[in-house]
Amino acid sequence: MAIPHAVSGQPVSVLPAADAALERQTVALFKTQELEVMRLVLPQGKSMPAHKVAGDITVQCLEGSISFHSDGQDQVLQAGEMLYLHGGVVHSLTGLQDACVLVHIVLHK
Amino acid sequence: MAIPHAVSGQPVSVLPAADAALERQTVALFKTQELEVMRLVLPQGKSMPAHKVAGDITVQCLEGSISFHSDGQDQVLQAGEMLYLHGGVVHSLTGLQDACVLVHIVLHK
Repeated sequence: MAIPHAVSGQPVSVLPAADAALERQTVALFKTQELEVMRLVLPQGKSMPAHKVAGDITVQCLEGSISFHSDGQDQVLQAGEMLYLHGGVVHSLTGLQDACVLVHIVLHK
Repeated sequence: MAIPHAVSGQPVSVLPAADAALERQTVALFKTQELEVMRLVLPQGKSMPAHKVAGDITVQCLEGSISFHSDGQDQVLQAGEMLYLHGGVVHSLTGLQDACVLVHIVLHK
């Protein structure tokens, strides 16, 4: 089932545990002309392969922990920690524990 | 003391409880040419008066709860909930409980 994007000013829950219907799946929460927000579910050992996007991003660990690889470095993000990354930088993510991650991406027009 | 902004790829803690030196104060976490991220502390009953910014924003309640007013509507955001708002829309925030809020703002060049 497609998940409708929330509209401007409409609250949504960030945590999958609060919305059983989403079944802990990766989901796009918002998308405007300027900004995209998604919640990634990364089970332990699962990776999102190396990729890059044009705009700046932030990656916020909501649950569990992940390894974030960029610029030849691995960083561990625990729940409650975040980082930003400049656009165009190749990066990859791996779940160290079952993890849930909130990602903001600035979109270039 | 000025809080140095984190650099690209450097993890920071989102929650003030994890960093006693910040003493639960409002702080800018990141600022790039495209994106600004700040953590607002809104004690119960305290408001951020009506204002607007040019770019799209997201507001994520990390702790406590807030009332978010825009477009003639009040929304309650509990910890774990977020919303986005299009740029240029006047809005205000009030702490319903002692609250901590993460704000992303897309910056226009």
